[in-house]
This record gives sequence, structure tokens and C-alpha cells, in this order.
Amino acid sequence: RRLGFEEVIFGASKSVALLSDLLKDYVEKNKNVLITKLQAEKAKHLLEDFKTAFYDDESEIFMLSHHEISDESPTRIGIVSAGSSDIGVANETYYTLEYMGVKSEVIHDVGVAGLQRLLDHLEHLKTFDILIVVAGFEGALPTVVGGLLPQPIIAVPTSVGYGTAKAGETALHAMLTSCANGITVVNIDNGYGAAMSAFRMLNLIEK
Amino acid sequence: RRLGFEEVIFGASKSVALLSDLLKDYVEKNKNVLITKLQAEKAKHLLEDFKTAFYDDESEIFMLSHHEISDESPTRIGIVSAGSSDIGVANETYYTLEYMGVKSEVIHDVGVAGLQRLLDHLEHLKTFDILIVVAGFEGALPTVVGGLLPQPIIAVPTSVGYGTAKAGETALHAMLTSCANGITVVNIDNGYGAAMSAFRMLNLIEK
Amino acid sequence: RRLGFEEVIFGASKSVALLSDLLKDYVEKNKNVLITKLQAEKAKHLLEDFKTAFYDDESEIFMLSHHEISDESPTRIGIVSAGSSDIGVANETYYTLEYMGVKSEVIHDVGVAGLQRLLDHLEHLKTFDILIVVAGFEGALPTVVGGLLPQPIIAVPTSVGYGTAKAGETALHAMLTSCANGITVVNIDNGYGAAMSAFRMLNLIEK
Amino acid sequence: RRLGFEEVIFGASKSVALLSDLLKDYVEKNKNVLITKLQAEKAKHLLEDFKTAFYDDESEIFMLSHHEISDESPTRIGIVSAGSSDIGVANETYYTLEYMGVKSEVIHDVGVAGLQRLLDHLEHLKTFDILIVVAGFEGALPTVVGGLLPQPIIAVPTSVGYGTAKAGETALHAMLTSCANGITVVNIDNGYGAAMSAFRMLNLIEK
Amino acid sequence: RRLGFEEVIFGASKSVALLSDLLKDYVEKNKNVLITKLQAEKAKHLLEDFKTAFYDDESEIFMLSHHEISDESPTRIGIVSAGSSDIGVANETYYTLEYMGVKSEVIHDVGVAGLQRLLDHLEHLKTFDILIVVAGFEGALPTVVGGLLPQPIIAVPTSVGYGTAKAGETALHAMLTSCANGITVVNIDNGYGAAMSAFRMLNLIEK
Amino acid sequence: RRLGFEEVIFGASKSVALLSDLLKDYVEKNKNVLITKLQAEKAKHLLEDFKTAFYDDESEIFMLSHHEISDESPTRIGIVSAGSSDIGVANETYYTLEYMGVKSEVIHDVGVAGLQRLLDHLEHLKTFDILIVVAGFEGALPTVVGGLLPQPIIAVPTSVGYGTAKAGETALHAMLTSCANGITVVNIDNGYGAAMSAFRMLNLIEK
Amino acid sequence: RRLGFEEVIFGASKSVALLSDLLKDYVEKNKNVLITKLQAEKAKHLLEDFKTAFYDDESEIFMLSHHEISDESPTRIGIVSAGSSDIGVANETYYTLEYMGVKSEVIHDVGVAGLQRLLDHLEHLKTFDILIVVAGFEGALPTVVGGLLPQPIIAVPTSVGYGTAKAGETALHAMLTSCANGITVVNIDNGYGAAMSAFRMLNLIEK
Amino acid sequence: RRLGFEEVIFGASKSVALLSDLLKDYVEKNKNVLITKLQAEKAKHLLEDFKTAFYDDESEIFMLSHHEISDESPTRIGIVSAGSSDIGVANETYYTLEYMGVKSEVIHDVGVAGLQRLLDHLEHLKTFDILIVVAGFEGALPTVVGGLLPQPIIAVPTSVGYGTAKAGETALHAMLTSCANGITVVNIDNGYGAAMSAFRMLNLIEK
Ligand SMILES: Nc1ncnc2c1ncn2[C@@H]1O[C@H](COP(=O)(O)O)[C@@H](O)[C@H]1O
Ligand SMILES: Nc1ncnc2c1ncn2[C@@H]1O[C@H](COP(=O)(O)O)[C@@H](O)[C@H]1O
Ligand SMILES: Nc1ncnc2c1ncn2[C@@H]1O[C@H](COP(=O)(O)O)[C@@H](O)[C@H]1O
Ligand SMILES: Nc1ncnc2c1ncn2[C@@H]1O[C@H](COP(=O)(O)O)[C@@H](O)[C@H]1O
Ligand SMILES: [Mg+2]
Ligand SMILES: [Mg+2]
Ligand SMILES: [Mg+2]
Ligand SMILES: [Mg+2]
Ligand SMILES: [Mg+2]
Ligand SMILES: [Mg+2]
Ligand SMILES: [Mg+2]
Ligand SMILES: [Mg+2]
Repeated sequence: RRLGFEEVIFGASKSVALLSDLLKDYVEKNKNVLITKLQAEKAKHLLEDFKTAFYDDESEIFMLSHHEISDESPTRIGIVSAGSSDIGVANETYYTLEYMGVKSEVIHDVGVAGLQRLLDHLEHLKTFDILIVVAGFEGALPTVVGGLLPQPIIAVPTSVGYGTAKAGETALHAMLTSCANGITVVNIDNGYGAAMSAFRMLNLIEK
Repeated sequence: RRLGFEEVIFGASKSVALLSDLLKDYVEKNKNVLITKLQAEKAKHLLEDFKTAFYDDESEIFMLSHHEISDESPTRIGIVSAGSSDIGVANETYYTLEYMGVKSEVIHDVGVAGLQRLLDHLEHLKTFDILIVVAGFEGALPTVVGGLLPQPIIAVPTSVGYGTAKAGETALHAMLTSCANGITVVNIDNGYGAAMSAFRMLNLIEK
Repeated sequence: RRLGFEEVIFGASKSVALLSDLLKDYVEKNKNVLITKLQAEKAKHLLEDFKTAFYDDESEIFMLSHHEISDESPTRIGIVSAGSSDIGVANETYYTLEYMGVKSEVIHDVGVAGLQRLLDHLEHLKTFDILIVVAGFEGALPTVVGGLLPQPIIAVPTSVGYGTAKAGETALHAMLTSCANGITVVNIDNGYGAAMSAFRMLNLIEK
Repeated sequence: RRLGFEEVIFGASKSVALLSDLLKDYVEKNKNVLITKLQAEKAKHLLEDFKTAFYDDESEIFMLSHHEISDESPTRIGIVSAGSSDIGVANETYYTLEYMGVKSEVIHDVGVAGLQRLLDHLEHLKTFDILIVVAGFEGALPTVVGGLLPQPIIAVPTSVGYGTAKAGETALHAMLTSCANGITVVNIDNGYGAAMSAFRMLNLIEK
Repeated sequence: RRLGFEEVIFGASKSVALLSDLLKDYVEKNKNVLITKLQAEKAKHLLEDFKTAFYDDESEIFMLSHHEISDESPTRIGIVSAGSSDIGVANETYYTLEYMGVKSEVIHDVGVAGLQRLLDHLEHLKTFDILIVVAGFEGALPTVVGGLLPQPIIAVPTSVGYGTAKAGETALHAMLTSCANGITVVNIDNGYGAAMSAFRMLNLIEK
Repeated sequence: RRLGFEEVIFGASKSVALLSDLLKDYVEKNKNVLITKLQAEKAKHLLEDFKTAFYDDESEIFMLSHHEISDESPTRIGIVSAGSSDIGVANETYYTLEYMGVKSEVIHDVGVAGLQRLLDHLEHLKTFDILIVVAGFEGALPTVVGGLLPQPIIAVPTSVGYGTAKAGETALHAMLTSCANGITVVNIDNGYGAAMSAFRMLNLIEK
Repeated sequence: RRLGFEEVIFGASKSVALLSDLLKDYVEKNKNVLITKLQAEKAKHLLEDFKTAFYDDESEIFMLSHHEISDESPTRIGIVSAGSSDIGVANETYYTLEYMGVKSEVIHDVGVAGLQRLLDHLEHLKTFDILIVVAGFEGALPTVVGGLLPQPIIAVPTSVGYGTAKAGETALHAMLTSCANGITVVNIDNGYGAAMSAFRMLNLIEK
Repeated sequence: RRLGFEEVIFGASKSVALLSDLLKDYVEKNKNVLITKLQAEKAKHLLEDFKTAFYDDESEIFMLSHHEISDESPTRIGIVSAGSSDIGVANETYYTLEYMGVKSEVIHDVGVAGLQRLLDHLEHLKTFDILIVVAGFEGALPTVVGGLLPQPIIAVPTSVGYGTAKAGETALHAMLTSCANGITVVNIDNGYGAAMSAFRMLNLIEK
């Protein structure tokens, strides 16, 4: 546990054999571990050997022994997604936070093309400490949210879209050039990174 | 006059000598002409010889004998700009429409980071036949307008911004990937093209 | 039905399970819905449960209960395609318009490398209110059409081609930089968006 | 004052005339204002009319009536710069924070090619609530800092460098792909945005 | 004289001092030389020392002792330009051919947005051995010419345009992806290279 | 047969059904046809119905009734390839020329990293009317050949390579920026286009 | 054996048939050969015919008759990898060196986000003649190593990562813009090239 | 002096004031310093205060008290440049090496388009320990040199060229994708970096 962060492995370009070895090591040491971007096919193999592990298809998150957070603990973080296609990335954030012991809530499908839906959620969104805003296509949602609410906003561009969406590059650039004040951004589809930066901020309060 | 469009010359990469020859030709034939993207330095030279011509610094539009449109004629087109830095492009649209005999109105500085300003203008925006929406930086304005209003929307990305704004590319791509229905787009800083496409649409009604 | 637009879902990055839930919801509420960019494999699964639905392989359009338009209604929109490889995008426009209750006609394979074919169709093309021009490779067709005809022209770049075609980027940029007057452009392969912007224009006439 | 943020104007693409009008308006209303990215040439003109204003050459920051922060108030934010060429961006952050009433300290020239210098500052860096890390060239500094320290880290890529530095794009992408946990990023040369996002975080603690 | 090509120097990034030395060397050896892309400012200095030299402002071509070609020799090559902004590149081709002893003719301003102008020139264009087609903006002219005429066609993209013209990249890519048969392409603004490749082809006939 | 070119179809993005219809049409009219970039899977289906057709796996060329050229006819065109991975593109040129009735010869694997091999072929290369030079990776071969030989040179970049080869873009750009005189270039992997432009040149001699 | 380099073939875009022919040729001539980037599927086929050959799944290296290097020979080259996902590229370097008769050692997973691990290896790293540093994601490792150690450093960017990692482009650009002194770089994933350049340097000492 | 490297400052983005302070500091401490990429205008100011300093216009190198190397010391490094436009970068390498106490020789204008010139120098080039090969445009020279000579080769792409030369990007990518064995590459125009990496290699021999 470096700096209070739990162990995390990037799964996308590791072989099942290598991942299996790493997991055995963690099991032996009685430690938790989270694997990100683990393809379903590879997860299937690992789940055979690590039966208590948890895997979420949408987010490709794999966790060795995950613990749900008690219902009493307060919900600190709101994860707002622009479209229902962004569910994978929203879930990556949700489960990473859970893994770090932080409770969050996902509010789905609040795209700016239908502004009313966002305005309807405004009072609810005010209750969170931090907002993580997930959007693909033109990535305009963080700008609009940032103009309406004062909390820290972590924007996550997703690779949802086609043509000029450029696999998330347009959303990324739009978020970085946002004319709303003080929005910060993480890598395309990096729901995991958004969770970790939120965790750094929560530490700040607890200090 | 091809297809009802008045003559237009692209001024940016022509020498003063060449432009002067072309203008003399138009004067002799008693014809109007509009020059786009004419640098101030070159305009200064041409204004010495063509004293009745009109030049607008912000938009770099030069017109041989321009006629203001009578106050009685209806205002058909609303030009909405996201920030006051977009004034040059908004003016290029305004003067091109004027040149084509079409009256328009510019509504400045209605950026999405301050949503209220846009909502305040909503009733007024409903009165136009066509909306031309001009925005730089992240280019989110056409998406929000497109989700609120049913008219034809012509989006014009501008090169205002820095870094990831990429000289208008990000606004362009954001507008093209907009998840609002049926927005069309023209080249970066192409206020002239937006005016011309609006002109094509107005012809459609008059038919 | 927001702003008179029927419901539309982006199908490419949603799972069958999620789409199935959404469709059930629409069926219950007795509403129509159109899904764009739905991969054939996923369509096959959905057609098993929603037997009256319509699916077109070329365009990947899926519609819950589509109604053909009566033969008497006038054909408002001409969809001109540069090559027979562009059929998928042309069909996406055609079926989206049909879904919105608008009759259109597709004129195939009128590429500029064989100019005569275009000139042969000229009289016919004059009869449409709006022209939607679909082209891949170098995307020159909208420029040539725009120089010959005065109607509103919506250009749709397609991802047809290889190498420097850059998956539609070259056609897109060529259309945006067109030196023909007043052409507007939508995203690469966005036949759906072209239909929706035509719909906005038709509303304008009806007003 | 929207959401508690003071007024800020983007100066780079506005004319002196327009800026002068805006400033007069603020003076009349007895309000503060900060202008970012104001070219020295334009600043010189404005300083003639607004004699009490403050202008910093390195950062191109212009402030109407700025107030230094009392020495007693705690220094909340550490601004770490990789090289002395990054001073402009570091200062943009510093003065924006000052404008918002927040005290910060700049630690210069702590590049990763000379790791010892960074290690020497480690104990001092631990004392800040938030770290803003500014770097051009390969942009590696936030990754190394992020691996050593647990605070929120806002990374600011700068356009310092040449060739493959690509005017800040490489530093930006390096920071976004950082394998250190939970780093967030703002636009290239956006020292202002970094300050504003730090301000959002400080609000969080005060809540 | 390598392979029958006369000496050519790339002038853009050489200092006046270096160029002056090179020219003196040629003068001493009684040889011709052509300098391409020579900025006006530098040409002015060189013309003071080399009084018989020829310099053309539009094309930035500088020639030591150029000989006009006799009126009787046949005109082998047609240089077709899309707009009058392309004159610099057309001239670079014209003077390079002249330098190589080949007579050519420039036909200006035959853009595809006004198809009739091109059709009017068709019979004349048939008389040339080779066609060099110069175009900026969307670069569609070579495609249309290539569909109408059977000669070798060398397409030259120019950097004329703005925004998505991308300093000639869009015209270049459009020409390379042309769906007309057998068009070949040279670098952006490379009128010199087009002349040289035509020279290779003429050698072929003479063989 | 437009301009003397035989019929050619782009096969990559057409369905088997559509291609089959087109082929039947040609068979009925007793015409030849060549299909380029036809995937092996689709070719297999078509070969079942069109048993006399010819298909080459390497180049993905499909021809309805192709005729080998008599051994007596002179070999006009040399196709030089840099590596044996470029065989597909070299074959595309070879078969297209054959289809047009032109005899050519492929000289394989003459990369510039082993200069001696090229120098060994020099005398043989001098015997051709036209040289088509095919290269992937850094695409340096046309430059070296162009510096040694005076014939028309058509350079064909291929998508062979990885990383910074950028799917042929680097070879393309290297060929276009070649400092050898008068090289012309076609699209990445466009062996077909190279053949067609050679055909235009051969017409020139025959005239 | 040109310049002392053993024969090497690029396997990725050659067919099994072609590779098999080439290998037979080498076997007959009693020569060694190494194939790089050979896909597992194709390797399986070749291993059936060439039973003594060696194939490594991670690096896709295939060698005809490879000889392990005696344990006594000194280990000249340290291969440092940033993450365990970089194993494929590290192995490509290792086996290529082995093929050239040079002994090396791989030190895995020394990423800069956990600086301590690197510092722990420092003394060991000092013992090598040359360091080859392999890293994906933000590619910061060579910069940090280059600031700490005086040997020649060959940096190898890998395509490990997602989004803004841009398939290795970001690591490549970061390494090229490194502010550490005198780092040289090879192509993305080019473990083979790194080995070859190390071989050139070792020759230098032996001279 | 870190790792034996003398002090070096990147001059391009530092103000004269800042540089002057830094230089005074070095003078006081009796240390040498080299400034790279120092614009002529700024150098002029600094030379007034530091009269013994050396400045080279072509390379923009500024050195405090530089010592020429004795004629007796052996010439270790050959710097080969493709064109006389590359002189600036070649000089940057030359003077940096001189600053480090290493003698080198520049061989100018050995472009591959005139292969004979390179072959003429071959015997001379064999005498150097290390070759630094500088080229702009298509950047093919290192590939050809690398195929002919066995020494370590450090390739330096320059920003000489226009259009598809892309300010050195094409030469850079061509060098990285070179099919010659074991070439390493530094940043565009980075003559300084090439010298430093040669210095690391020379240390290796001396060890
Ligand atoms: N999806 C992800 N995006 C960015 N960084 C990640 C991701 N998953 C894991 N990491 C980071 O990468 C490191 C693991 O890399 P590795 O050693 O290759 O598994 C971890 O320490 C994490 O900090
Ligand atoms: N700013 C502009 N953007 C795009 N097209 C333009 C612009 N200004 C003029 N044009 C078009 O370009 C043509 C003029 O090009 P030229 O003959 O070079 O002046 C005109 O017919 C216009 O249709
Ligand atoms: N092919 C498409 N291209 C662009 N936008 C689309 C497309 N299909 C659907 N949309 C829009 O995206 C919205 C649906 O997004 P979602 O909620 O993710 O299904 C719809 O309201 C449409 O406005
Ligand atoms: N405008 C140009 N574009 C491309 N190549 C050129 C140009 N001008 C000259 N060259 C070529 O570049 C070589 C001269 O380069 P240099 O030795 O730097 O003057 C000549 O041999 C020409 O073949
Ligand atoms: Mg939605
Ligand atoms: Mg504003
Ligand atoms: Mg066709
Ligand atoms: Mg420093
Ligand atoms: Mg014109
Ligand atoms: Mg080979
Ligand atoms: Mg690791
Ligand atoms: Mg030269």
C-alpha cells in the first residue's frame, strides 16, 4: 500500500499466465488487488481459479475479494454520465471507489442535448462532495455542470462515438478547453484514475 | 451572379495588385463584390483607391458599395456567439448576409458555462427562422441550443482558444459529434459560409 | 418527442441486454423508436424478441414498427451518392427520413470522375427541396453539385476508401473547405444527422 | 461572482478597444477583474488608462486592483515547476490564486533529470494541501511527484520545448497517461485553470 | 547537370551569405542555376550583386541568366489553376519548365465550383501533352479533369485556404484519394517538382 | 471504356451480393472488369459463380476473363519493390497493367539498406520506359532510384511496417518530400493507381 | 552477414508460404536466421516444419537454431523495463542480443511511479556497459535513468497503454523530448533495433 | 557537472534578464556554460555584457569561454549532413562536442539524391568512431549510411523542408522506421542531444 492506495494492476496487455501468477502472490500475502481493463475472455479463465473474485462485464474490473460498503456510510461522490453508453467507464469509477472504501452513486444519462434532465438533478448533485462527470461524443457535460455547481469536478472523456469523436480525443480536448472554471481531466476511458484523484481529495478533507 | 449568389473573392492570399485589378473590373461593370479574410494592411491600401468601399476590422470583410438593409424588413436570422472573442466571425456572417440583402441580429456572449444567460434569451431566439451559432474553445453552445430549439442550426467553430483548442479543430469536432439532433457545420472561422448556407435555406421558403 | 423529433438511440456501444430493456420500455409506452449503428449480430438477437421490427443490413438501422410513406406524398429530398459503396450511409438517411414521415429518393453512383452521369441527372435534381450529398474517397461531389444547384446542400462524408482517405477524414475536410458557396456538413457516416437537419429545414417551410 | 469565482476575461483574442470598454464597466461597478493571456503590447495601452492595475510580463496576467495576501495567512498550495522556462505558467497560477485570496508558493526548477533536487524538497512539499506541478518537454515531473506524495496533484503541461515537444502536446499526453495514481490535468499552459480547480478543492475543506 | 536536370537550390532555409557564395561559384563556372522558395527579402539582397538575374515575386523563383523560349517552339504543357490565389505555385512550375527549356501555358482560375469555365476550356486542354493541375482548398480540380481527359495529370496541392484546408494537407489527401484514374501527386506547393516530373515524361517521348 | 480505361470496381466495401449483381451485368454485356482490394473471403464466394475469373491472394485483385500478354510484346515498365513484404502492392500494379494490355516486370527486394543490390540492377533498370517504385517502412527507395535514373518514376508507398511507419503515412510523406527531382506519388498501397498513371504516360508516347 | 549483422527477417506481413521458402533457403545454406514480429498462428505452422527452431510467445521472436550464451561470458547490457506489460519488447531485445552472441539481463517492472524500486537497483545498473530502457504509458523511465547514470542509454517506447498513450506515440515523443542528456531512441516496440544499436556500440569498444 | 556533463541551458524560452542572471552566477563560480537555441536578438544583448563569450549564428549556440581543441587530438566523430541547409544543426553538434572536449569534423551536403557524393566519402567515413547523420526533407541519409557502415549511427532529423516535410516530423519518422540495422534517433533539430549521446558512447570506450 503505497501512499494509502491499494494495489492495482493494468490487465489489458498481460497474459492470463502472468496475471494468474501475480494473483496467487497476492492471495498468499492475504492482500487485496484490483485489475483494470481486463478483457472478458481473460477474466473467465481467472475466475475459474479465483472463485471468490468479482468481475464486472461493463467496466472490465476484476477484484480479488471485494467488500461492499455499509449502507450507513455517507455517499461522498456523484458520478454523472452523459449517456447510457458510458456505463462501462462510470462503473470503473464506482468499483474502484468501492475498492478504496468510498461510497458513490451513479446518475445515468444526463446528456446536455436534453438540458431539462440535468436541471432536474441539480439539487441532488449539490449534495455530493465531488462530482465525476463522464461523457463521450462532444464531451460538453462537464462544462455545463461546471458552470452550475461549485464542487471539484473531475471530467472523464469516453471513447463512445464515431468519426470525428476520434475514439474519445474530441471529448478529451473539449473538456480540457472548457470555458467553465477549474475543471480537471483524466485520460480517455480512465474511470479508475478519476476515482483515485477523488480519493486524493477526500484525504485532504480528512486531514 | 451564379445561382443568385453575389460575387465573393477570397482575399487572404491575393496581393494588393491583383485585388486592385479585380476590383477595377467590378467597378467598370458596375457590379458589387465582397472580399473575405482581407488583412487590415491590404485593406488600407485598397481603401485609398476605392473610397466608397466598406471595411470591418473585426471580420476583415471588404465590400464595394454596400447597402444597409431597410429597418422595416424582418430579421430572419439570429447569430448567437459564445464569447466576445467570437465577434470577428459573427460579424463576417452579419455583413455577408447584409450583402445578400438579408437582415440578421447578433446576440453576443451567451456561453454555456453561464447557462442562465442562454435561458434568458430563449424566447427571443425562438423568433428567428434560422440560428447560426458561433463558438470557439470547446464549442458546446450549438449542442445546448440544438437541444432547446427546433430551427435549422448552422454551427460555426472559431479558432479562439489555445493549447487543446487546436486553432478551432476541437470546436469543429465537438460540433460535428454533437449528440443534439440535426446540427450542420461549416469550416473553422467560416462566418461567410454560414451566411451562404442560410441564404440557400431562405430561398427554400420563398420558393 | 422533444422538439418534434422522434426517439433515437445510438446502438453501437450498448449491450443487447441494455437495448432489449430500452425497447421493452418503448413497446409498453406504445412509442416508436429508431436505433442507429446497430451491428448485425446484435440486431439478430433483438429481432427474435421484437418480431415486427425492421432492420436494414446496409445501414445498420433498426426500427420498432416502421410505416412506409404513402406513394402520394411528394418526394422532398434527393439523396445523391458518389459511389455504390456509399449505400449504407445513403440508406441511413433514407430510413431516418421515412421514420420522421418524410419521403426521399436515393440517386446512386453519381461520382465526379464521370461528370456526364451527374449532368444527366441535373434536371431531376432541380426538383428536390433539399439535396443530401453522400461521398467517400476525396469527397468532391458536394462541391460540384453546389456549383450547379441553388438548394440547401447537406454534405455527408463517408469512411469509404483507404490510405489517405483516412476513414472519412479527407472527405470531411474537403467538404468543409469546399469553395462552393454555402455547403454544410455533418459527421463522417452520419446519414442520420443529415436526415435530422433536413427535417429542421422542412419545418421551416411548413411554418 | 458566479459560484464564488471572481470575474476573469480571456485577453488573447480581444482588441484593446473591447477590453478597455469591459474594464471601464468593472471600474464603474467597483468590481475586480483579472485578464489572462494578455499580450504585453496590449497591456501597455491598458496600463495607461488604468494606472493602478497590475501586469506581470512573464505570465501575461493583468489585474484591476490586486491585493497582496497578508503574510500571516497559511500557504496552502505548492506550485512546483520543472524548469525555469516554466516560470510564466507558474506565475499565472500564483497570481490567479492571489486574486482568489489564496496564498501559494512557487518552487522552481525541480526537473526529474536531476532527481536529487526533487528529493531535497520532499519534506517541504509534504506541508502543502495541494500540489500544482508545472512541466514542459516530456512532462515527467507529475508522475514522479505523484508516486512520492499523497496530496491532490494538478498537472499543468507547458508549451516549452521544440520538435517532438509539439507545443505542449507531448507533456499533456504524458501527464494524462501517467502511471502514477490519480493525477488530474488541465489544458496546455493553463496555469489559470489549475488555480481555479485548486480553489474548488479548498472550498471542499472549508465546507 | 545530373541526369539532364539543370542545377537547382532550395533557397528557403539558406542564409544570404551562403547563397551568395554558391551563386558566385556558378557564375565562375559559367553555369545556370535556379533557386526555389527564395524569400523576397533575401532576393533583394542577391539581386544587388547579381544584376542580370531574374526574380518572380509570386513564385519566389530566382534564376541566374534565364532565357525565354522562342515563340515558335510548341507548347507542350498546360498548367491549370483552380483559383487566382494559386498563381504563385503555377508560376513556379512555369519558370522551372522555362529554365529546363520547355514551353508551357498557364490557364487560370478554372475552379470546379463553376464547372462551366472548365468545360469551356476542354478543347484547348486536349492539345497539351501533359496537364499540371494546381489547386488549394478542397483540391477537387484534378479529379474532375482526370475524369474528362486522357493525358498524364500531375496534381499540385497548394496551401491556399484556412481552417480545415490545413495548409494544403486536405488538398493533398483529396488528390491522393481521387477516384479518377491514374492521377499522380507532388508535395504541397511543389510547382518545381511538378515541372521536373513533366520533364521526365517529355524525355520519354523524345527517346 | 471511359478515356480508354477498362472498367474497374473498388471491392473492399461492397457486399458479395452487390458485387455479384455487378459482375452478372458485365458478363451479359460481354465486358471485362477488374475488382481491386477484394478480400479473400468474398473472392471465394464470387469464384464459385464466376469460374473462369482470376484471383490473386497477395494483391486481392479479381479479374473477369484475364488474358496473358504475348511473350513477344516488349516489357515497358519496371516495378521495383523494396522488400518482399511489398509483394501484394507490386502484384496489384502488375495485374492491372496486364489487364490494360501492358507488359511489365517485377524486380523484388531491392531495399536501400543494402545498396549493392540496387546498384547491381542498375543497367537492367535503364531498359524500362517507366519505373514504378514500391516501398514501405521509411520509403527511401524512390529517392535513391530517382537520383540515379532519368525515367518517369511513380512512387507507391505501402502500409508495411509498424509504429512510426504509421500504416504507410511515413513512406508517403518521405516520397512526397523527396529531394530527388521530379518523383510523383500515389496513395498508400495504390498499386492500381500507379499502373493507371503509367498507362496515361504510355498513351503519350503512342500519340 | 552484412557489416557483421546476422540475417533478420520482418515476419509480420509475410505469408507462411513465403517465410517457409525463405527458411528452407537458409537451412540449405547452413545459415542462421531470426524472424521478428511473427504472429503466434504463423509460428505454429513454421515450427511443424522447422522442429529445432525456437519461438517466444511474448516477443514473437522466431530463431532458426539458437545457441544460448555460455554462463561465463560477461553480461554487457542491462534491459530495464517499466512495467510487466513491457515484457514482450524486453524479450525481443534479449533474444536478438543472444542471437548476436551478446549476453544481457532483464530487470523488470522498475516504473518511475514507485521511485524506490529504481533507486534500489541503482548500484546493479551501474555495472552494465549499456542500458536499454523499455517503457510504455508516459515513457518517463529513460529520463529518470538518464539523470542518474552515465552510460549510453537506448530508449524503447512500447505500445502499452490506452487513450492518450496513442499506441506508443506518447512514450516515443516523451523520450525524444527528454530533458536528460544524450538519450537516443528507436521505433515504438522496436526491441530488435535497440539490440542492434547496442551491438554497434559494443563493436566500438572491441575495435 | 552531473555525470561528467558540463552545464547546459535551453535558451529559446528564457528572457534576457533571466539568462543574464544565470550567466553572472556561472561567471562568479568560474564555471563554463553552454546555451542552446538562443535567438540572435537575445544573443546580441548578452554579448554586450559577456564580451569573451562565443556565439554562432547558424546554430544559435552561445558559450561562455570556449576553448578550441588542440589540433593534435584525434577526430573521433564524423558529422554528415544531407544538404547545406542543415548547417545549423550540424554546427550545434560540432560546438557542443567541442564544449565537451571532443573533436569532430563536419562533412557537408552528402544527400542521397546524388549517391556518388556519399560513395566518394565512404573511405573517409570509415575512420570515425561514431557517425552523426543530419538530414531534413525525407531523411533517407541515415538509412543509406547505416547500410554501408558498421559504426554507431546517431540520426538527427532537421526541420528543413516544407509541406509534407512537416517541420521535421517526416524525417524523424523515416529515421525511426529505417530498415537499416540499429540506427538510433534524437529529437528534431537536436544537434545538442546527438553530441551528448556520442559523449556517453565515448565514455564507454575510455572506461
Ligand atoms: N486503467 C489504468 N489506467 C492508468 N493507470 C493504471 C490503470 N490500471 C493500473 N494503472 C496503474 O499502472 C500501474 C500498474 O501497472 P502494471 O505494473 O503494468 O500493472 C499501477 O500501479 C497503477 O497505478
Ligand atoms: N472565406 C471564404 N471561405 C470559403 N470560401 C470562400 C471564402 N471567400 C470566398 N470563397 C469562395 O471562393 C471563391 C473565390 O475564390 P477566388 O477565385 O480564389 O477568389 C468564391 O467563389 C467563393 O465561393
Ligand atoms: N448515429 C448517430 N449519430 C449521432 N447521434 C446519434 C446517433 N444515433 C443517436 N444519436 C443521438 O444520440 C442520442 C442517443 O444517445 P444515447 O442516449 O446514448 O442512446 C439521441 O438522442 C440522438 O440524438
Ligand atoms: N522547392 C523544392 N522542393 C523540393 N526539392 C527541391 C526544391 N528546390 C530544390 N530542391 C531539391 O533539393 C536539392 C537542393 O537541396 P540543397 O542542396 O539544400 O540546395 C536540389 O538538388 C533539388 O533537387
Ligand atoms: Mg441519452
Ligand atoms: Mg463570455
Ligand atoms: Mg462508381
Ligand atoms: Mg533546469
Ligand atoms: Mg475563382
Ligand atoms: Mg529485404
Ligand atoms: Mg508496475
Ligand atoms: Mg544538396
